[in-house]
Formats: sequence, C-alpha cells, structure tokens
Amino acid sequence: MKETNRHEIQFEIVKPTEIEARSFAIIKEELKDVITDQKKAPIIMRAIHTTADFDYLENLCFSEGVVERLHKSILNGACIVTDTQMAKAGINKTELAKYGGEVFCFMSDEDVALLAKEKGCTRATVSMDKAATLNRPMIFAIGNAPTALVRLYELMEDGVLSPEGIIGVPVGFVNVVEAKELIMKADVPYIVARGRKGGSNVAAAICNALLYQLREQDESC
Amino acid sequence: MKETNRHEIQFEIVKPTEIEARSFAIIKEELKDVITDQKKAPIIMRAIHTTADFDYLENLCFSEGVVERLHKSILNGACIVTDTQMAKAGINKTELAKYGGEVFCFMSDEDVALLAKEKGCTRATVSMDKAATLNRPMIFAIGNAPTALVRLYELMEDGVLSPEGIIGVPVGFVNVVEAKELIMKADVPYIVARGRKGGSNVAAAICNALLYQLREQDESC
Repeated sequence: MKETNRHEIQFEIVKPTEIEARSFAIIKEELKDVITDQKKAPIIMRAIHTTADFDYLENLCFSEGVVERLHKSILNGACIVTDTQMAKAGINKTELAKYGGEVFCFMSDEDVALLAKEKGCTRATVSMDKAATLNRPMIFAIGNAPTALVRLYELMEDGVLSPEGIIGVPVGFVNVVEAKELIMKADVPYIVARGRKGGSNVAAAICNALLYQLREQDESC
Repeated sequence: MKETNRHEIQFEIVKPTEIEARSFAIIKEELKDVITDQKKAPIIMRAIHTTADFDYLENLCFSEGVVERLHKSILNGACIVTDTQMAKAGINKTELAKYGGEVFCFMSDEDVALLAKEKGCTRATVSMDKAATLNRPMIFAIGNAPTALVRLYELMEDGVLSPEGIIGVPVGFVNVVEAKELIMKADVPYIVARGRKGGSNVAAAICNALLYQLREQDESC
C-alpha cells in the first residue's frame, strides 16, 4: 500500500516489525530466483540488504560445504574474531551467546598497538597473532584489513592456527583483491567477497545471516 | 613496488602507515580529477574508500555550503547523533572530542524500545524524539533507518528541532529513496546519498571525512 503524505512524496505503509521481511521480499523479487542454492541464498541476500548493492550476487564465493560447517561450529560454541569495532557492534551477540560464543576484536587493545608499532606491521596483523593464543574454536570475520587475511594464511601454514572458517570480506584498494585470492587457496572453509568490495557491515551481515538461519531452524523444530 | 610471495600472488609493498594514503591515491587516479569541488572531494573519496563503490561519485548530494556549515558546527562543539551502534563505533570520537563534541546513539536504550513498542513505531523514530530533548547543537548521521529521516523532517516542521545538518545515508529497499528525497526538500544543510545505497559505514565515513578535513586545516596552520 502506498500513501501520499502532506509533502507529496509517496511512502509505502509497512509496520516496523515487517520492514525487514518486506525488504527481503523486494530483493527476492528483483533477483528473480536466480540463486538456486538455498543454503547460500540468505547470506547473499543479507549482504545485498546491508549494501543495496547487487554485486554481492556475483562476488560472494563459498568453499564447498562452508555454510553447514560454520553452522556446526556456531552450534558448538565457536567465537567470532573481527578486525573492526564496527563489525563487532553489528554482529548479533545475543544470538551468538545462545550457543556459548562471543565476539572478539583486539584492534583497540593497547598491547596490540604497541607491538604493531614495534614490529612495523599493522594492528590487524598483531590482532590475528593475539587471537591465535585463544584456546577456543574461532570463526574469523574480516571486513577491513587484508593484512589480517595474509596473517591468518601464514598462521595456518605454520600450523599454529586452525580456524573453523574465514569470512574474508575486507574492502579496499591496496592488496585487498590479492589477500582474498590467497585465502581461497588455503585449506580452510571460507566465504569471500571476491574483488575490492566488502566491509565491516558486510562481515557483520554474513555472521548475522548464519545466526538467523540457525534461529529459523530452531523455531521450525 | 610489487612483490611475489611464496604463494605466487603478487602483493604491493606498502608500509602500514601509508596504506590509507596509497588507497586514496588509487581512488584519485581512477577518478581522473572528475571532482572539481575541493570541499566535497575528500567526502566523496572517503565514501568510495569505505565501500569500493564508485556509485558514490554520482549519488552523493550536497546542499549549498553544507561542508563549511558542518565544519563550523563541529568547531563549535556540535554532537553527532546516529541511528546505529555500528556508525557510532566507526566515527572517530577522539577527533570529535577535540572540539567538545560527542557521539550519541539511543537505539539500544530500554526506554526507546519500550516507547517504540507502545506507539507501534520504529526505535529510530523514538530515538530522534529523544535526541530532540538534548539541549546541544546536533548533526544527525543516519545510516540505517529511513523512519529516522522522516521523524527528523516532522520535528523540524513542528519547530521542535533545528539540526546543524543531516547526513542522510540510510541503505535499503523500503521508503529509503523517498525519505532521502523528503530531507532534500527540507530547509536544512544536508549530505544525502540519493537512491537505495548508503549504510552505517558510509555515515561514519562522511563524519570522519569532515573531521579529517578539520584536522588537516589545523595541521597546516
């Protein structure tokens, strides 16, 4: 239903609780059932929902069985480690906590800043080293720093880290494309936004899509 | 300089402290000096930097003199009110505090949630009402909820709120386009991302671009 208000702009009348569902209905309509994989569809659609950018239909790459694997990890209490406070703010921590997980971001930690300066590397690199010392199952959600992805690759190669999975969606212009290609060569479950696009919002959206899929499974039981 | 690492992917060698400058140099190069307005350029470029989406070159709309006006407001201690915790997390609060400003987001406040439920409106709407009770100069940075923009319009029309300016960049599919058009009809300084695109990241990026312009002015004095 459309309503013209006193300012001569037509608004659609949608109840607050129905805005998200209506948004997804519009996205689905415009996609015209082009996504055939029902495990990936809610993830791709939520990335589009959070950016209004249909490029995510093309650029999101999934390793074989990654959605099932990440669901299982979350159910088993996996934590999420991010490279920005924005992604941390955006991830639904209440949903994650239902399964025992929590969200970590070490980027603003004083020891991380000091060590990065000392080593001449990025805080994101040191943040990944710090995460590697946690003795918990971890999913990495990287929305900003390609150097985080490179460091994760090295830590995996050196056998000191074995992530449950990597959501590799940093955005940008310097080594972003390359770092994503590197992760897709690694032996790790991944969801990667190929190319330059991505961001903290996309990282959070993908985490939330995974969480909401689990919630829907719960509710349908 | 490019370096091929042991994994046969070429990475560009850039020092951590130079990554941002290098990113902006790439953006500038690709834009080929198409932005002639030097006040707007850093804002448009930072929106592109944060999304890798060159659509922001076309869709960002500025009211006459808005950049100067928002700079003046920040220098005079204006606060920033946002509609998401993500935008709040992304805004450089240290820079803003230099001039006496702080960032507010009322979206998670218990009284806001309760009142929204009672009234059958969005939490964003009630958040704007709550902001209107603050006795401080305010810039609104809206990255998510079109209902926040509609409420701001009504509060201005009713004469109970007079914002220093509105950064109107909600993202989405339901009434987002319309709410932005409404704000551009109002008698208020605005920066709006016309169309569906935007987001908390873009809202934060625009606030930070404004803050970094001021910092550069300070440093060149």
